[in-house]
Amino acid sequence: MSKPKNTIPNWKIKLHEIIYEADTATGKLFDIVLLILILSSIVLVMLESVGSIDAQFHDFFDIAEWIITILFTLEYIARIISIKKPKEYIFSFFGIVDLLSTIPKYLSYFFVGTHALVALRALRLLRVFRILKLVRYLGASHNLIKALKASRAKIAVFMLAVIIICVILGTVMYLVESNKNSGFTSIPRSVYWAIVTMTTVGYGDIAPVTALGQFIAAAIMILGYGIIAIPTGIVGAEFVSQEKKNVHLNTQSCPNCAAENHRDNAQYCYECGHILNH
Amino acid sequence: MSKPKNTIPNWKIKLHEIIYEADTATGKLFDIVLLILILSSIVLVMLESVGSIDAQFHDFFDIAEWIITILFTLEYIARIISIKKPKEYIFSFFGIVDLLSTIPKYLSYFFVGTHALVALRALRLLRVFRILKLVRYLGASHNLIKALKASRAKIAVFMLAVIIICVILGTVMYLVESNKNSGFTSIPRSVYWAIVTMTTVGYGDIAPVTALGQFIAAAIMILGYGIIAIPTGIVGAEFVSQEKKNVHLNTQSCPNCAAENHRDNAQYCYECGHILNH
Amino acid sequence: MSKPKNTIPNWKIKLHEIIYEADTATGKLFDIVLLILILSSIVLVMLESVGSIDAQFHDFFDIAEWIITILFTLEYIARIISIKKPKEYIFSFFGIVDLLSTIPKYLSYFFVGTHALVALRALRLLRVFRILKLVRYLGASHNLIKALKASRAKIAVFMLAVIIICVILGTVMYLVESNKNSGFTSIPRSVYWAIVTMTTVGYGDIAPVTALGQFIAAAIMILGYGIIAIPTGIVGAEFVSQEKKNVHLNTQSCPNCAAENHRDNAQYCYECGHILNH
Amino acid sequence: MSKPKNTIPNWKIKLHEIIYEADTATGKLFDIVLLILILSSIVLVMLESVGSIDAQFHDFFDIAEWIITILFTLEYIARIISIKKPKEYIFSFFGIVDLLSTIPKYLSYFFVGTHALVALRALRLLRVFRILKLVRYLGASHNLIKALKASRAKIAVFMLAVIIICVILGTVMYLVESNKNSGFTSIPRSVYWAIVTMTTVGYGDIAPVTALGQFIAAAIMILGYGIIAIPTGIVGAEFVSQEKKNVHLNTQSCPNCAAENHRDNAQYCYECGHILNH
Repeated sequence: MSKPKNTIPNWKIKLHEIIYEADTATGKLFDIVLLILILSSIVLVMLESVGSIDAQFHDFFDIAEWIITILFTLEYIARIISIKKPKEYIFSFFGIVDLLSTIPKYLSYFFVGTHALVALRALRLLRVFRILKLVRYLGASHNLIKALKASRAKIAVFMLAVIIICVILGTVMYLVESNKNSGFTSIPRSVYWAIVTMTTVGYGDIAPVTALGQFIAAAIMILGYGIIAIPTGIVGAEFVSQEKKNVHLNTQSCPNCAAENHRDNAQYCYECGHILNH
Repeated sequence: MSKPKNTIPNWKIKLHEIIYEADTATGKLFDIVLLILILSSIVLVMLESVGSIDAQFHDFFDIAEWIITILFTLEYIARIISIKKPKEYIFSFFGIVDLLSTIPKYLSYFFVGTHALVALRALRLLRVFRILKLVRYLGASHNLIKALKASRAKIAVFMLAVIIICVILGTVMYLVESNKNSGFTSIPRSVYWAIVTMTTVGYGDIAPVTALGQFIAAAIMILGYGIIAIPTGIVGAEFVSQEKKNVHLNTQSCPNCAAENHRDNAQYCYECGHILNH
Repeated sequence: MSKPKNTIPNWKIKLHEIIYEADTATGKLFDIVLLILILSSIVLVMLESVGSIDAQFHDFFDIAEWIITILFTLEYIARIISIKKPKEYIFSFFGIVDLLSTIPKYLSYFFVGTHALVALRALRLLRVFRILKLVRYLGASHNLIKALKASRAKIAVFMLAVIIICVILGTVMYLVESNKNSGFTSIPRSVYWAIVTMTTVGYGDIAPVTALGQFIAAAIMILGYGIIAIPTGIVGAEFVSQEKKNVHLNTQSCPNCAAENHRDNAQYCYECGHILNH
Repeated sequence: MSKPKNTIPNWKIKLHEIIYEADTATGKLFDIVLLILILSSIVLVMLESVGSIDAQFHDFFDIAEWIITILFTLEYIARIISIKKPKEYIFSFFGIVDLLSTIPKYLSYFFVGTHALVALRALRLLRVFRILKLVRYLGASHNLIKALKASRAKIAVFMLAVIIICVILGTVMYLVESNKNSGFTSIPRSVYWAIVTMTTVGYGDIAPVTALGQFIAAAIMILGYGIIAIPTGIVGAEFVSQEKKNVHLNTQSCPNCAAENHRDNAQYCYECGHILNH
């Protein structure tokens, strides 16, 4: 836990290269092995939850999980000792997820009460969040995230508006259908139904039976069908405006006045008229 | 109720600042307290409608509602006396909503018949509309509403077209499925089904059973899946054209001819050639 | 039926003005009355199909339908005699719809067998198509239709692709689920299910029960959720490119070279340099 | 199987023209006949799978399928002998599909055990994939495919993100609803439900019953309703940028400096100022 000094040992630099970077052959291999381990652990947790499969392969699942848990633990330790500032990793989002994905199995070893195990299963499932690491491997998501960030506020307003409309319409439907045995037994349930309908999910576990109820339901559907256009329009416009910046402008800088964002086929600087280099 | 004179007392100006503006610390505090009160009153109305919860906490709900109702009443009176032209507030949309959200509780005090109470519950629920006030606090919704207003007419035409298609297809389905015990008992019901299907909600409470009926249903689904593109395209195009105006043009005005809407990096006026100030 | 000569009587010109145009006060009144009649006739047909309502108001419905039928007949005759080339109207789409919306009631008068009446109800319902006339009154639909026409071919390809994918995936699901009592009893039914799922309608009357079936179903859903973007993108791009033409160009014509499509704030012709009129 | 020499016989050139091209009258006729055959074979396979229809027309289906199989075989042989490099066709995607669509019927002739037939029906269904050939006939799909290819990586990232979110939310729902008899019996099933809900399909075969479960479900729906905007925005932006290239630029080349991509109404080269030919 002692802070590494300025003269970092050679093996630490190598370990850091392998774990945190993907430029060398061993670095790439490490990433692929880790990816397979994460996916395996998720598949294991999933299969274990299926009663019939768990009954047959319980011992295999137990051993496999111990192996994966130990490997994850080793990786966690390696990450801490190979980085310059371990605290930044430990308290980062992925640092906490890494820790939480190893702890449950150890805890299940110490607390082997029948009741405690049920609760521990819950903790163990947090390991699923490890899959989020996959996003690290995707470079193409850059523009996606930029466009989402730019339209974040507008989408939040849209979602809030949808929730407000659903609360109002759910309340109206409760008044119309509450005494008809059609599932609208309370306002929260009616609001749940309004969300199910507005988002065009439509389970059918709750459905209006009165003529007026069906008329309002039809109105909600057409409204939901129409306003889906809004988030789409927002994000779409954001993408268009980003695409434009990417496609039509180049990264040249005027040798005279250092102006940037020249058109791709520009011969002269738009600012000072100086000829551009090619 | 007498109109305030030109020499407005100091406390009225202060009250107006607190209630209608959000620049001062007390103004912000007032808005946040009001927001919490509105959300609480909505949660109360919702929970009260759940039979099992209402049976247990009926007295608490009654007291809580009286407190909120009185606070809303005080706010309503404060709004009237602190504004210059009270009539404009009283007959505005939010003025009427504010009044309607306080009245029901008082009415329930005077008319305590068993039957009357059921109807009063309905009035009381209008308070839910108060949530609309939340929109006031959202600045980011400006562009959203502008784009919606600009594409309002086109979206109305689209929705009308969807309704017309659903009326025609619902009628056709009634002819095909009416004698098959599959729920298509009348044309309005079949039109309701067509809307449920076209908007891709799909409850499943009514579903075609004949081969021809399922063929037409499949056609409606693919149509509905395809034409969702239209409102999306309309609003999207509107957003793109607005984004363009926002991003690429600045708010400068030519010092010579007062022409506006210059490009962000323009050096000279596009109208008269005069150099622009920076 | 004799063709009107070149010297058209004055009352014919007036009748034409009232029926076919909407510039005069009487012309507008005619359109509004007709609109109300069409909507009334549709509501009548709908209500008549509801068993309980028809039993109570059968006589009223019969009289009301006779009145509307006679009024539609008079309108049909007026349209023929007031137009220069009646044949063009009679064999146009709306001419045929107008005729078909009046005939059924007369036929029901002559053929009053019990069996014949059932078939006639079907013909009578064609009157619903009259609602299509409403589109005439909507000016805002101009751009909508232009954008749709421009992207027609691409949307047809997309819909064909969706159908092909649904045929293939429906066949695969038939092989996986056919012996599991889960509703996949034949390939057409499985294809119907695939369309219900792909278009995100999701009735739930047919749903996979095997693990493999649910896995494939999940794949279809994510595919359907993703490819909805395609028609949306097509139409959206069309709208954007049309919007651009509408917003940024004006309808001026150069007084020197007659070039058109000038930018809104252009001072000089982009073609010959001549100053533009304002 | 011997490779055709450089001096190709005349009939082989003609056959190649008919089969692989569509410029001549016989070439077009061949394509149309083939299209009809493919569609007929698919309809046959579909109808055969419907128990009641197969019982009545079994012999007709058997004969019709033999005819189509023999015609497909002849086509397959003709394709091999008329092409210069048969191996490239045989091992191409459509070559393999063509072979697989003829084999099953021949196999069913040799292996006529009751059990074997059931498995053979499966192979026979592969013929459905032949419908993919239809895409060859569609020219309008060019831009569609180009836009899809350009946005392929981003859509893959989006779909992966949707799957990750569904795995996490499905796991959470399993913890919330697993003991409530509401169908969330295992994590894979819960993930399946999350996908059904997120993509707004909503079968309703599995639906939450607890208040917390319905709250999370509502959150998933609104999330799914909102993020549909992302693939739409990606593809839409791609289309817009492609449309721009198509619409606003022409294919002229400057006679002086050979610069391309001139605006449609350009008079002078944007690069060297030379006048353009018209």
